[in-house]
Amino acid sequence: MIKIISDISEIRRLCDENRLDGKRIGLVPTMGAFHAGHLSLIRRALEKTDFVVVSIYVNPIQFGNNEDLDSYPRNLTADALLAEKHGAHVVFAPNDEIMYPDGYSSYVTVEGLPDVLCGRSRPGHFRGVTTVVSKLFNIIRPHVAVFGQKDAQQLSVIRKMVHDLNMDIDIDAGKIIREPDGLAMSSRNQYLTGEQREQAPVLYKSLLAAKKLIEGGVIGVPEITGEIKSVLDNAFLTEIEYIEIVDVEKMSPIENVSQGALIAIAVWIGETRLIDNIIIDV
Amino acid sequence: MIKIISDISEIRRLCDENRLDGKRIGLVPTMGAFHAGHLSLIRRALEKTDFVVVSIYVNPIQFGNNEDLDSYPRNLTADALLAEKHGAHVVFAPNDEIMYPDGYSSYVTVEGLPDVLCGRSRPGHFRGVTTVVSKLFNIIRPHVAVFGQKDAQQLSVIRKMVHDLNMDIDIDAGKIIREPDGLAMSSRNQYLTGEQREQAPVLYKSLLAAKKLIEGGVIGVPEITGEIKSVLDNAFLTEIEYIEIVDVEKMSPIENVSQGALIAIAVWIGETRLIDNIIIDV
Repeated sequence: MIKIISDISEIRRLCDENRLDGKRIGLVPTMGAFHAGHLSLIRRALEKTDFVVVSIYVNPIQFGNNEDLDSYPRNLTADALLAEKHGAHVVFAPNDEIMYPDGYSSYVTVEGLPDVLCGRSRPGHFRGVTTVVSKLFNIIRPHVAVFGQKDAQQLSVIRKMVHDLNMDIDIDAGKIIREPDGLAMSSRNQYLTGEQREQAPVLYKSLLAAKKLIEGGVIGVPEITGEIKSVLDNAFLTEIEYIEIVDVEKMSPIENVSQGALIAIAVWIGETRLIDNIIIDV
Repeated sequence: MIKIISDISEIRRLCDENRLDGKRIGLVPTMGAFHAGHLSLIRRALEKTDFVVVSIYVNPIQFGNNEDLDSYPRNLTADALLAEKHGAHVVFAPNDEIMYPDGYSSYVTVEGLPDVLCGRSRPGHFRGVTTVVSKLFNIIRPHVAVFGQKDAQQLSVIRKMVHDLNMDIDIDAGKIIREPDGLAMSSRNQYLTGEQREQAPVLYKSLLAAKKLIEGGVIGVPEITGEIKSVLDNAFLTEIEYIEIVDVEKMSPIENVSQGALIAIAVWIGETRLIDNIIIDV
């Protein structure tokens, strides 16, 4: 059975040993509740490194007060078995006392990028993400860290942090893994009722409709977001939080769609908030 | 002549090579304008590590708008020669474009600790310090970093950051080096006129008076700060910014002085702000 380590000194020692042996260290930071998307990130890390650490930690400081921290799915044993099956070498699963002991007060922030898209409705969310990721980077000291493209804004914020703070880590993005009907895999999909689940593929359908418009030569952002809105509005259970088209690096709004534009949406289906995105490659 | 490197990739490569050779890396972060205090830190780093990097960088983001960024003394060549003479192996001296390129937006903050003592009159100062130190740590990846005890609050804030963010770096403190008349060495002492310089030893005299009281059995903070104030007030050119007695780790006010209390003062002599401190060891 794969080793599950919660102690910081112990995981650090193990990573140091492997690094000294000349192995390249990979890190896949996760909050657990694995689906095929997570497992693809583990396999991706294995292609690029020799010793893959999967961290499993539901990071409280990236959840808002009214968010789903308490109900977020946790299943460490099942996750560890899946990680092992897909080739991970060790699981790092600390607890809150280890990560944020009494009196904890240090934070890493990226200004600007987090103020759009998800950051607008989730103040403090990205500060929580960059802080925990910094801690994991300092503990594991990976050569490569793999994140999912589904959290596109998170990926941009982490890339910016790594660049600005001179972290010597290669940030790699794993593409979005989808259910057969197009729904992006997410640990939060399990919150959906049967009826809601049937509606959920509309997120990707709306993005595909936008893509089709763009391939047909449309580049104006209002026209494209209008198309996305009209597709989403057809699904009667959904409530749109945002539809945004931005530069994927700067996360700043653009007027006309071109190569590297990120189309990102957040939609509520009942009490469940789902996100999806595509990057335009024209 | 000692090598002066400004390029991040180049210094990183050199440190990586030495680390792979099994050498322990030491870092002495400075803003240059070396005096005997800096040189003692270099020698201290040499005792503990095999390859000592001295960084020289006047970090703009730790200066307030009305502070002495422009007039801060700079003399890279002389500093590099001194560093070499005292055993340093390389000087890292980046410029602002390298450290804070256009669009820079990531910061490391420690909450709480920076809000007392110097932090009160220098908002943003410690955010600038923790950010630049994080960057230097990520570039150099030292085993040991040496800071001066003279900047006592800076030292506490950095120790807290290293602890909270799980940086695997030993933070070492070099004791305050003083002129024969007791004045703590500081790059800012050169701002003083002859008359001001004659008054300046009053800072240390006031701390020694406090120490004598404590050694005589006085533990009440008001009585001790009162004694310091009366000594400082005897020097007619001085204006007191703060006299504070705090727990050295938490930087929180205490009621009675005991082992590990930090007595810290900041005093203006004309346009020059000087700080000094002692830690009580009873």
